[in-house]
Amino acid sequence: MKEYFSNIPKVRYEGPDSKNPFAFKFYNPEEKIAGKTMREQLKFSLAYWHTLDAEGTDMFGRATMDKSFGETDPMAIYKNKAYAAFELMDKLDIDYFCFHDRDIAPEGPTLSETNKNLDEIVSLLKKLMAEHNKKLLWGTANTFSHPRYVHGAGTSCNASVFAFAAAQIKKAIEITKELDGCGYVFWGGREGYETLLNTDMELELDNMARLLKMAVDYARSIGFKGEFFIEPKPKEPTKHQYDYDVSTVLAFLRKYGLDKVFKVNIEANHATLAQHTFQHELRVARINGVLGSVDANQGDVMLGWDTDQFPTNVYDTALAMYEILKNGGLPSGGLNFDSKNRRGSFEPEDIFHGFIAGMDAFALGLRIADRIIRDGRLEQFVKDRYKSYQSGIGADIVSGRAKIEDLEKYALKLGEVNAIGSGRQEYLEDILNSIMFGK
Amino acid sequence: MKEYFSNIPKVRYEGPDSKNPFAFKFYNPEEKIAGKTMREQLKFSLAYWHTLDAEGTDMFGRATMDKSFGETDPMAIYKNKAYAAFELMDKLDIDYFCFHDRDIAPEGPTLSETNKNLDEIVSLLKKLMAEHNKKLLWGTANTFSHPRYVHGAGTSCNASVFAFAAAQIKKAIEITKELDGCGYVFWGGREGYETLLNTDMELELDNMARLLKMAVDYARSIGFKGEFFIEPKPKEPTKHQYDYDVSTVLAFLRKYGLDKVFKVNIEANHATLAQHTFQHELRVARINGVLGSVDANQGDVMLGWDTDQFPTNVYDTALAMYEILKNGGLPSGGLNFDSKNRRGSFEPEDIFHGFIAGMDAFALGLRIADRIIRDGRLEQFVKDRYKSYQSGIGADIVSGRAKIEDLEKYALKLGEVNAIGSGRQEYLEDILNSIMFGK
Amino acid sequence: MKEYFSNIPKVRYEGPDSKNPFAFKFYNPEEKIAGKTMREQLKFSLAYWHTLDAEGTDMFGRATMDKSFGETDPMAIYKNKAYAAFELMDKLDIDYFCFHDRDIAPEGPTLSETNKNLDEIVSLLKKLMAEHNKKLLWGTANTFSHPRYVHGAGTSCNASVFAFAAAQIKKAIEITKELDGCGYVFWGGREGYETLLNTDMELELDNMARLLKMAVDYARSIGFKGEFFIEPKPKEPTKHQYDYDVSTVLAFLRKYGLDKVFKVNIEANHATLAQHTFQHELRVARINGVLGSVDANQGDVMLGWDTDQFPTNVYDTALAMYEILKNGGLPSGGLNFDSKNRRGSFEPEDIFHGFIAGMDAFALGLRIADRIIRDGRLEQFVKDRYKSYQSGIGADIVSGRAKIEDLEKYALKLGEVNAIGSGRQEYLEDILNSIMFGK
Amino acid sequence: MKEYFSNIPKVRYEGPDSKNPFAFKFYNPEEKIAGKTMREQLKFSLAYWHTLDAEGTDMFGRATMDKSFGETDPMAIYKNKAYAAFELMDKLDIDYFCFHDRDIAPEGPTLSETNKNLDEIVSLLKKLMAEHNKKLLWGTANTFSHPRYVHGAGTSCNASVFAFAAAQIKKAIEITKELDGCGYVFWGGREGYETLLNTDMELELDNMARLLKMAVDYARSIGFKGEFFIEPKPKEPTKHQYDYDVSTVLAFLRKYGLDKVFKVNIEANHATLAQHTFQHELRVARINGVLGSVDANQGDVMLGWDTDQFPTNVYDTALAMYEILKNGGLPSGGLNFDSKNRRGSFEPEDIFHGFIAGMDAFALGLRIADRIIRDGRLEQFVKDRYKSYQSGIGADIVSGRAKIEDLEKYALKLGEVNAIGSGRQEYLEDILNSIMFGK
Repeated sequence: MKEYFSNIPKVRYEGPDSKNPFAFKFYNPEEKIAGKTMREQLKFSLAYWHTLDAEGTDMFGRATMDKSFGETDPMAIYKNKAYAAFELMDKLDIDYFCFHDRDIAPEGPTLSETNKNLDEIVSLLKKLMAEHNKKLLWGTANTFSHPRYVHGAGTSCNASVFAFAAAQIKKAIEITKELDGCGYVFWGGREGYETLLNTDMELELDNMARLLKMAVDYARSIGFKGEFFIEPKPKEPTKHQYDYDVSTVLAFLRKYGLDKVFKVNIEANHATLAQHTFQHELRVARINGVLGSVDANQGDVMLGWDTDQFPTNVYDTALAMYEILKNGGLPSGGLNFDSKNRRGSFEPEDIFHGFIAGMDAFALGLRIADRIIRDGRLEQFVKDRYKSYQSGIGADIVSGRAKIEDLEKYALKLGEVNAIGSGRQEYLEDILNSIMFGK
Repeated sequence: MKEYFSNIPKVRYEGPDSKNPFAFKFYNPEEKIAGKTMREQLKFSLAYWHTLDAEGTDMFGRATMDKSFGETDPMAIYKNKAYAAFELMDKLDIDYFCFHDRDIAPEGPTLSETNKNLDEIVSLLKKLMAEHNKKLLWGTANTFSHPRYVHGAGTSCNASVFAFAAAQIKKAIEITKELDGCGYVFWGGREGYETLLNTDMELELDNMARLLKMAVDYARSIGFKGEFFIEPKPKEPTKHQYDYDVSTVLAFLRKYGLDKVFKVNIEANHATLAQHTFQHELRVARINGVLGSVDANQGDVMLGWDTDQFPTNVYDTALAMYEILKNGGLPSGGLNFDSKNRRGSFEPEDIFHGFIAGMDAFALGLRIADRIIRDGRLEQFVKDRYKSYQSGIGADIVSGRAKIEDLEKYALKLGEVNAIGSGRQEYLEDILNSIMFGK
Repeated sequence: MKEYFSNIPKVRYEGPDSKNPFAFKFYNPEEKIAGKTMREQLKFSLAYWHTLDAEGTDMFGRATMDKSFGETDPMAIYKNKAYAAFELMDKLDIDYFCFHDRDIAPEGPTLSETNKNLDEIVSLLKKLMAEHNKKLLWGTANTFSHPRYVHGAGTSCNASVFAFAAAQIKKAIEITKELDGCGYVFWGGREGYETLLNTDMELELDNMARLLKMAVDYARSIGFKGEFFIEPKPKEPTKHQYDYDVSTVLAFLRKYGLDKVFKVNIEANHATLAQHTFQHELRVARINGVLGSVDANQGDVMLGWDTDQFPTNVYDTALAMYEILKNGGLPSGGLNFDSKNRRGSFEPEDIFHGFIAGMDAFALGLRIADRIIRDGRLEQFVKDRYKSYQSGIGADIVSGRAKIEDLEKYALKLGEVNAIGSGRQEYLEDILNSIMFGK
Repeated sequence: MKEYFSNIPKVRYEGPDSKNPFAFKFYNPEEKIAGKTMREQLKFSLAYWHTLDAEGTDMFGRATMDKSFGETDPMAIYKNKAYAAFELMDKLDIDYFCFHDRDIAPEGPTLSETNKNLDEIVSLLKKLMAEHNKKLLWGTANTFSHPRYVHGAGTSCNASVFAFAAAQIKKAIEITKELDGCGYVFWGGREGYETLLNTDMELELDNMARLLKMAVDYARSIGFKGEFFIEPKPKEPTKHQYDYDVSTVLAFLRKYGLDKVFKVNIEANHATLAQHTFQHELRVARINGVLGSVDANQGDVMLGWDTDQFPTNVYDTALAMYEILKNGGLPSGGLNFDSKNRRGSFEPEDIFHGFIAGMDAFALGLRIADRIIRDGRLEQFVKDRYKSYQSGIGADIVSGRAKIEDLEKYALKLGEVNAIGSGRQEYLEDILNSIMFGK
């Protein structure tokens, strides 16, 4: 088998002082943090589409990278993508990967032939997974790139397209089961609208729920045990995407009785496109019991589109890992690098730089999150802040004993109530910096 | 009684050619549009706070207007605000008004005295309402301006503040009932957070639900028959406001079993702050059966704060009125001008210019929405677009007869399915312009 | 010669009541408005790239349209694009077109062969222009799509790329001259940076100025008489584009002594991406004497990327045409539809719908702008507002006679000066609506 | 003299491990970094307005803080503000302060009386400065809060307001000179517009230039030797502020021949409101030779208004200090904390937390910037990246020897030029993290 990145050896931990560009400075896989190894805590995953497929195009420019791996025959190209994927996972010490059906195998002229291609590559992947000891974090179906999905898949205005999408999702669930995927993701890239002038929003949302229900029912009927995730995004490619953010997804799931069936897969860049911080989306999911998996990347907050950059902002990774630790980890999910090299980072070694930067940033995040918890000051502050709800009138409010008339009586006796208890934002941010930049 | 705007007579409809600055050009109250008079369709309401209280301050500047009405004694000031309010409603031919408790009466040193002030003014308002034949659209409590609410009211970290808020809301519900209000609004201006570092989001949201439940239970127990509304806003004054947008409110209501109890009051400027169009928020509310009332204003989409300008963009009012007509109107709500004069529009006559501009813009919106429906092209296009769901495989999808295996069989037989049916956005926008600017 | 749009006859003016989808409702080419025919006032132009080349791809989806015109040989495809372009201009009654070098002819394996291809198509275009009586509004070079320009063209970190860009621009100027173009545009799509961590901003800007200077010097040396335009855009594809907005371009031009040589080509969607209104950018350009030409389109202000939609918002077109009329028109420029059909509008007839929608929107804009001027109220208001600068202390300020000591003396005698003269925004917006929606 | 913060002793450096909330963890004033003491490198300044005046109001809420210092008489209040300011500067070890005229003394009923108040406080400040060994970084005039400036000061539509502003600025320059200020700032809070419908932009900008010229001429005539700064901001309170960003200011200065006279005072939060990073604005200023002083704060990039938070994001402070070190420091400027406590941080000790957080964040920034330079990898990368401009065709381009014809000849010989040299963004970001979080 060819080695595609022969000039780069397996990446190893060398500690913060290393100037070796191909070493981890902060990610030490077997080191224990917060009771588990970093490998167990972080469960990194390689995203097939960005890593093996994307070639650096943008809306104003052609490919800057070549990911045909020296082949011209479609199946040969995709087999070599698979080999390269496992070489990368080996060299980067990554245990998981994720894919869309169309990332791993070429489309044929008919759905049958496409499925045949898929089966052939799935066999290869299964073999490689066993040989390299790698796992599938989740699978999904790409129901947004083909022109047939121009008006959506489950929310298409055309029933044949809905049927086509259902068929594609059925197959994607089957191969995810075949490869023992921990989960299956729904990202509704085109499930939204371009203009309300042509849109029957009510029918579209009802249909989206219908598709999700039949997909889940089928998956369970064939014995798929993995988790189901919905991945929120507010917009792009559509003007409005129905799975806008975690709260919008919750509203939808609760309306259609799907809230016990789905968790969410939260992407950092999608959070900021929805005007939320990454931590906000993780927190909302966590307290609603649906924090399932994470697409680890970052956007440029000055830009209004999905840049899907490798995550390097350690404030974000630290606060994300804090939420994940408080969630008891991501039992059925992981940290999938839905991250692509910048168009200008077009050399093969840039793939390594991207992953190393991202893995180190999340490793730092984990280290800091653990220090935050052990330090205790931030959590104690929050605990103290709400202590009035643990006794007296506060406890009566929480327990439901207090009626509004009781509260009025209580309030009338209070005299003037003024601002009570500084929120101390500056102090808390200073503590965070002390923990991050101290020892 | 003094006449505060003695130089301006009652504003009347004079038609589009009028150059009288104090005439309606498009709002003709008794003209019938879509089966009702414009007065019935539009149900305009004056917002007490912006109209009688706000004096043109902003974060960098002092008041440019004086709304003390020549008085210095607090109760005298507020009585005169009431007289001025009814003079304005008379002259502007507006039937409804809305208020927060603190808009209509001055705070005293204790809650009891504040309530006493409130009762005195409520009596006056009741008398004036009868004399002038005006109605209360909705009441609400201001639980965000006083420093005690710095960390929220129902979501305060302090139980005494929660109790104080509850007491204030109880009283506000009582006076709303006393004045026969059509509804009662909850806008959670401080129900959110400034930083997650100090926030127990889960407890805060649980408490918010507790407060809403006890308020509604109490209101029903005293016989209040009006509608309850939640008004979404994504941020400002807080960094994050829990009632972010209509979907977020739906997720919350559904979680706590409050979704049958509340409708939403949608503000145009809050919609755009949440990156949605006004029409989007109305549509989401409509198809979820919660479109209750509207705060009629507009923001500047190039700015990131709530400018609460009088609505003058007729594209927005036309598409809003389209949603409202499709909703069968706003049976328990209306169009409340949560709109303030620009700081630079500080002369008393600017109040008239603002309302006339807003009323004419919504009157135009109604006229155009009615023409859209009568013209029929836009609605027929949407109907045709989804017709594949009315028979065959589409009907089977909608009815639930089709399983995913059936859809796969169907799809495998289809051969290639490509993009089907242009969305025709440009054509539809051109039709809209034809309807708006044609005859 | 094939007719590509044989089902659609020449589009003609039928007036606002027409329901013919392929008729102009507001654009009546020979009707006189403000002293000239609408054709002369509006000078519409077809953008080759969006109309003949773009196939509906986006970052998440493949082509939905086919613009190979039934051919497979590259030169045959591009010849047919040319025929189709002129058929469209004829049927849409458009007099001008614009192109990038790479829009009109295929690239060959070497620059020489590319130039040869270009020459062959330029000959064809010249012939077609004469036959169809069409004119070139402006030409430009595409120095952003090819991977060699990944780090910029004039601002590339690599001198060979700079040289290549210069060669390409030289040729583009030559063919623009050959086709008697009214102007030549520089849009620096990649002239910016992705991260300051790798960027020598000073050298890059100096080099950009060097390239512009040598290009202009060359153009004049070969007798090109057209206007030079810089087209501002703040970002996309780059994180930061150096020609951010009109003011930034002015700062650059003035630094390098180029401010007498260049005008600007203002695009509506680029304006809003820079957080400005379209009118703002036109106004800044106008009062600085550099308003040259316009890229007529619109963005979605809720989205953060360039959607390049056909312009249909008549508020924007009316205020744009107002600025253009006050500028005495666009003597060396025009209204180029840098507008593409939405990805979902993929049928050939959608091209017509887009242009008709845009042309009607600008025709409405012109009609309204003319009415604004003839109505006089808005302009008179502005004139009156500043009248204190026409005599007394105000005239002394403007003439430079008043020193600061004089102003202090004057001010000390004034006593308190409070807010003077309402800005009347609501009134002015109401007048605008009256003019737009009245008769 | 009263001690206002008697419970808090002088803040001292205790190193990163300290858990003392009132100690510096990273700011060690006398420690040398990059050849100077941290005190000299950072030149921290206290902003009078936020620290001594602002009381926590926002657009939806009343004051949460009391800064009357126990007094009721206006002059007594302002004297006590002065005492408190110097106590704070002493305890926080801050050497500089900044003010607007209206921050330090109360307005009287006439300009003469206001000036008299000002003179009295200026005498007190002068005495306190000598006693406490503190310096004035810069002074300025508040020409935006009073209602008279509702339509601007130098850009007011009213000549009397222009004159009043000029008088106020004249006096502010005199007191800045009296207190030996290092500089004088112009922030044009209302120098912009609310709507173009009522605005003569050309006259307004001409007048703004006239005011600046007469102010500078006067200042030089009385022997003021300090630097003049313009502070850019894109909007808020106005819809559009003329000094949008550094580039816009440069365009203005160059137009009116003022570019040799003014430098800029760059505020982090204003940069992000203009969609730029803080570093971007510093870089643009630096390479244009106008980087003068800094308003040290941070905004919330998810919010669209000026939050003026204490700076705590160390990525931003590190990259800012990098630009400042490359600028050779800020010879005539400093780091002025134009930062206010969050409304919820209303206790006196929060003032300390804010400054400590900000000073530590900038101290960390300085330490990291110094390490970036000493590490050398980032700068060497940039140097290497552009090395093709140091010889051959690149050197000919830079020197101006190469004409476009030469470049064409060169390019024609090159054959295909593809993407050359990865931009390595991920690698560079990883290096930055290594430097920040390593040792």
